[in-house]
Amino acid sequence: MSEAGTGNLAKIQLLASLNADEMESVNKACRWKLYAAGEQIIDQHSESQDVFFVVEGRVRIVNYSLSGREVTFDDLDAGSHFGELAAIDGLPRSASVLALENSLIAALGPEHFGAVLSRHPSIAVKVMRHLAHLVRTATARIMDLSTLGANNRVHADVLRLALLVADDNNTARISPIPVHSDIASRVSTTRETVARVMNDLARKGIVERGKNFLIVKDVARLQDMVDEVRGD
Amino acid sequence: MSEAGTGNLAKIQLLASLNADEMESVNKACRWKLYAAGEQIIDQHSESQDVFFVVEGRVRIVNYSLSGREVTFDDLDAGSHFGELAAIDGLPRSASVLALENSLIAALGPEHFGAVLSRHPSIAVKVMRHLAHLVRTATARIMDLSTLGANNRVHADVLRLALLVADDNNTARISPIPVHSDIASRVSTTRETVARVMNDLARKGIVERGKNFLIVKDVARLQDMVDEVRGD
Repeated sequence: MSEAGTGNLAKIQLLASLNADEMESVNKACRWKLYAAGEQIIDQHSESQDVFFVVEGRVRIVNYSLSGREVTFDDLDAGSHFGELAAIDGLPRSASVLALENSLIAALGPEHFGAVLSRHPSIAVKVMRHLAHLVRTATARIMDLSTLGANNRVHADVLRLALLVADDNNTARISPIPVHSDIASRVSTTRETVARVMNDLARKGIVERGKNFLIVKDVARLQDMVDEVRGD
Repeated sequence: MSEAGTGNLAKIQLLASLNADEMESVNKACRWKLYAAGEQIIDQHSESQDVFFVVEGRVRIVNYSLSGREVTFDDLDAGSHFGELAAIDGLPRSASVLALENSLIAALGPEHFGAVLSRHPSIAVKVMRHLAHLVRTATARIMDLSTLGANNRVHADVLRLALLVADDNNTARISPIPVHSDIASRVSTTRETVARVMNDLARKGIVERGKNFLIVKDVARLQDMVDEVRGD
């Protein structure tokens, strides 16, 4: 981690409605830091209440069980924010955050964040919409964990990745190839289970492994397999 | 369900900061209804975007899987509100809500709710805090589902109930006796598993069944059993 002077908050979605002067004022209130890939940005047990903006790079929201099991909650790209829960309610951090790539991060103290919300009701509304999105995502994951088998959850995660890049011919080229331990951490299962399910999908001709990509050869069939158990 | 004229919103925590005139104005904007125990208030597949206030009674936030499995998210007492996700983001309902007792419910349309939030920033802050609480609760449940066995989750739910009524002598009298299917729905397991775990706790002398109550005879020991796996 190293100090980084200041950067540009213009790409941060939450702050997009600020005019140049207001943006400059938030800019000055932020502490700017560069984090190397793999470095921790928030320790789950820290007492800070800053809100963070991902100016450049990519970060992962993650939690660890007592036994060391990793549970991934989300990966965030440049333009995102995180850490708002502690800034809003003053309670301890709910998760850890680490840099997946070299990342430029701006940190805004809770008192400044509160001032931005009270001066800009439209930003407060955006914060509410984002929190509502987090509740919905978590609710869907609780339903999946409560009612689907691990194999179904792996299918759903591969489908989610495929739908981001699906073409018109019912195929999707996911690149780079998904890391089994990442899928395992996102759907709360073991790497071994992910490997077994991926082999099974390959044997059925639904996916095919390339050098550094995964082709989903029949997105519709994968969608049917997921719909059948999830009922979407 | 029957029309109910108007009632009194004074006990609704979210609205506590309104003065008498403002409260009267919200009061008039609400539609009031009585729901019988067991009646559905929100259908997960409905398109309404009202926010609801529990003026009298008790309601359950619940979801059903395709296979009919019930997953309980929360039970809310008088003074609570629910349904704000759809009012905030305009998306479909994330869960169903049913009355656990005869309940008097006030429904406020999304446009009125939005007006209250923009006129009263302190209420917007309360909404944010409540959403942050929902995210934290869901995150903790995802961790439990990802890293604990069903027996550990049953222990944690009985502990949670015990801590609400624990006395100074390391015991807790939970009344009425918890319904096995309710515990099962809260921790995402089967009723049979709950019955097995409860029998096991009784055999170990940690709980004892009364006529219509459950005594936890050693709250500290149950706490240790939960801490050992959850690491709180």
